[in-house]
Amino acid sequence: MAPELEPASVTAGPDLPSDAIRTDDDHLLRGFVSAIKEALAQENADELRALTDQLYVSEVAELLTILTDDERPRLIELIGESFDFAALTEVDEQIRIDILDELPLHLIAAGFVELESDDAVYILEDLTEDAQAEILRTIPTLDRLALQRALDYPEESAGRRMQSNFIAVPPFWTVGRAIDYMREASDLPEEFHDLFVVDPGYRLLGFVKLNRMLRSKRPVTIDAIMDEVQEISAETDQEDAARTFQKYDLTSAAVVDKGGRLVGVLTVDDIVDVVQEEAGEDMLALAGVGDEEVSDSVRAITRSRLPWLCVNLATAVLASLVIGLFDATLEQMVALAILMPIVASMGGNAATQTMTVAVRAIATHDLDPYNMGRVVLRETYVGLVNGGAFALLMGIVAIVWFGSAGLGLVIGAAMVVNMLAAALAGILIPIALDRFKIDPAIASSVFVTTVTDVVGFFAFLSLAALWFGI
Amino acid sequence: MAPELEPASVTAGPDLPSDAIRTDDDHLLRGFVSAIKEALAQENADELRALTDQLYVSEVAELLTILTDDERPRLIELIGESFDFAALTEVDEQIRIDILDELPLHLIAAGFVELESDDAVYILEDLTEDAQAEILRTIPTLDRLALQRALDYPEESAGRRMQSNFIAVPPFWTVGRAIDYMREASDLPEEFHDLFVVDPGYRLLGFVKLNRMLRSKRPVTIDAIMDEVQEISAETDQEDAARTFQKYDLTSAAVVDKGGRLVGVLTVDDIVDVVQEEAGEDMLALAGVGDEEVSDSVRAITRSRLPWLCVNLATAVLASLVIGLFDATLEQMVALAILMPIVASMGGNAATQTMTVAVRAIATHDLDPYNMGRVVLRETYVGLVNGGAFALLMGIVAIVWFGSAGLGLVIGAAMVVNMLAAALAGILIPIALDRFKIDPAIASSVFVTTVTDVVGFFAFLSLAALWFGI
Repeated sequence: MAPELEPASVTAGPDLPSDAIRTDDDHLLRGFVSAIKEALAQENADELRALTDQLYVSEVAELLTILTDDERPRLIELIGESFDFAALTEVDEQIRIDILDELPLHLIAAGFVELESDDAVYILEDLTEDAQAEILRTIPTLDRLALQRALDYPEESAGRRMQSNFIAVPPFWTVGRAIDYMREASDLPEEFHDLFVVDPGYRLLGFVKLNRMLRSKRPVTIDAIMDEVQEISAETDQEDAARTFQKYDLTSAAVVDKGGRLVGVLTVDDIVDVVQEEAGEDMLALAGVGDEEVSDSVRAITRSRLPWLCVNLATAVLASLVIGLFDATLEQMVALAILMPIVASMGGNAATQTMTVAVRAIATHDLDPYNMGRVVLRETYVGLVNGGAFALLMGIVAIVWFGSAGLGLVIGAAMVVNMLAAALAGILIPIALDRFKIDPAIASSVFVTTVTDVVGFFAFLSLAALWFGI
Repeated sequence: MAPELEPASVTAGPDLPSDAIRTDDDHLLRGFVSAIKEALAQENADELRALTDQLYVSEVAELLTILTDDERPRLIELIGESFDFAALTEVDEQIRIDILDELPLHLIAAGFVELESDDAVYILEDLTEDAQAEILRTIPTLDRLALQRALDYPEESAGRRMQSNFIAVPPFWTVGRAIDYMREASDLPEEFHDLFVVDPGYRLLGFVKLNRMLRSKRPVTIDAIMDEVQEISAETDQEDAARTFQKYDLTSAAVVDKGGRLVGVLTVDDIVDVVQEEAGEDMLALAGVGDEEVSDSVRAITRSRLPWLCVNLATAVLASLVIGLFDATLEQMVALAILMPIVASMGGNAATQTMTVAVRAIATHDLDPYNMGRVVLRETYVGLVNGGAFALLMGIVAIVWFGSAGLGLVIGAAMVVNMLAAALAGILIPIALDRFKIDPAIASSVFVTTVTDVVGFFAFLSLAALWFGI
């Protein structure tokens, strides 16, 4: 997505000062939005163009999000060519699909011509195949082939995120010739940091950073100043590509197809979006939420959250079955019913702490074969230390509350058992899931809370049944 | 952190092939690590240099992490100047502090001279003031002043993350003169994407992207091709700086002091690390874990997790006090004790889902004044829909299990009440905390689980007491 530092100002009216557009913390002002809505109601295209021309691309996206379903396509139709389709990459998926559904095809075609290839792919990939085909038909052949190729790579792969417009030069060119080429060529990407060096078969030989170009004399040949380049296969998952960027501190990487031919370039600003997205996905997955966006409907949200709630109901019922084993004990000693949620809850929380650390460490590759043993051992210690501390504390509370030393002993012992189980489940379950190639962020919580609920209730109630002989 | 694409190979022995160093998923091979450990035991500096020269900076960091506390400083002392101190920015804080504590000062001084300023600040900032002063004393005056100034900015601010070595030119220079300057100057940063344009008082006028430079003819003046630049105040929190980068799709931004003078530059590759770090912090904070790293000791870990467990114990006891209000009811109807954890657990999970979505949306600024009302309303609907669905399901389960229609009704009603409470708590608590400038990632869970536990137990048991008249 190309930087757009100065809002283009081919406006009809006089420019508004920045504080008439946005608040201090960078939200659009209500007054500004009202002016847009009013101009929309009057179908005043000139006024709309004057107002929106002063916005950054991300602010156009914010504006679209604020407008109603009807207003969005109307705004775009009215301002026509002034609308930068890159804004569509920054609105939620459903809004994007709805807008494209409403817009006349010739407008979409005109908009797509101006787009960088990675933005075009980003917009196309969520559409149905029919809608994709309809839009692709309007695009000039060369660009269309590049887009189609990108769409053929798997979802969330490097091939989908890459920019297919890049500069490639042969190794025998001189710096001077390359500079002349760049001064004269008309179809260069808007933004680039490197030149790629390829053989006649487009196989990658290396790359030259622009600052290296600038610091070299004109007669120097490209192969004398080129560096070795990090290659990423187009099929690589975007998360792995991001990890490669971070591992080697890259600002850009060459994307190659199966034959080793250069097909695109990934730059670090694409990677920021990937890192942001993946971290968010992990966080939501741990809480049992699917791929959800703020603008989603009640129905979409309910559907995204229902599976996890169903699973949770099953594990909660399982825990209740365990409690049911001890109905005779509970009947005789109601204090047990009062105290038992504490044991389960403390275990659940301790396990969630350990599990979250483990899931995060697996995602960032901080947990590796070398430290795994040590980390598991450490978590076990931490579980024992915390278990001991809270056993003591809770034992005293129980004795004071119910005046029974036996109850204090029982809850203390149950607490140690469950905190230890929590620590082991919290660390071993994510590791095991990862080993079986199941995403630990998605599946860990279910297993972990089942363990701490079942162990918590069983340990407490069975120890009580034994101790008090009921 | 500067890219290091080709491991320098001024080695003594023949180069190892890559698959003798690292596994397919980019971990160091055990055999390679053993060779290092053996050479360390024999104090074979040449061998160590030959082996480590083939590693990327991030792999040197990985190696340091794998080695024992004693081996780490010994390795660095033995390989001496071949050690790139940038590797220290990629190990965990405690390991970094321990290593610097052990190394002789002259070695640290020599290492710091080679560091980029942002890496130097990153390494210095976790040290005690004494240790900082001791290292700073060994650094040449000009560099020292820049580092000291950076350290004076708040922790996690743009001033701490910026690179203070950049290229600034006056607006009246021509492209040709600027290129000649870059070809001849010796103290340029290793890596740069932009030239900054300043007036004689170092106040920022604009910037020129390198690709713009390359595409312009030599006689063109800088002010004719410069663009408006995004300024970030040095005091700005790194998270806000990252948001500015994403909002305006920047690849670099100028960092200015209070007087508007250019003091440094932030580039998008620094921002990737910030985004990664902040997303991780939010995820851990939600689970009640502090600033924890994989290499931390049992004591550090226990300390980071204890506060949240203590708070959780208090809320669990509070929930038990609520249960205690109904001891007479429980005594007469043990089925209530068996079923009550289900109501609390379902509420807790539904609330966690909503809360996580809300915390994430607040962090990414997706939740704003415009959609807040709609989102709260939608969460309320989702709570009612889910509550209704699970009320029905759980009602039937209870009727089948205990053969009591009354019990089914009671648990169904309690479920609706608690799922609604969960939805409201899950969305309103993070919003309220954010409004009071408290980080919702840190504080939300406590309040939210308290609400769902207390409401869950109270609704279920009080409805049962009313219905059955006990």
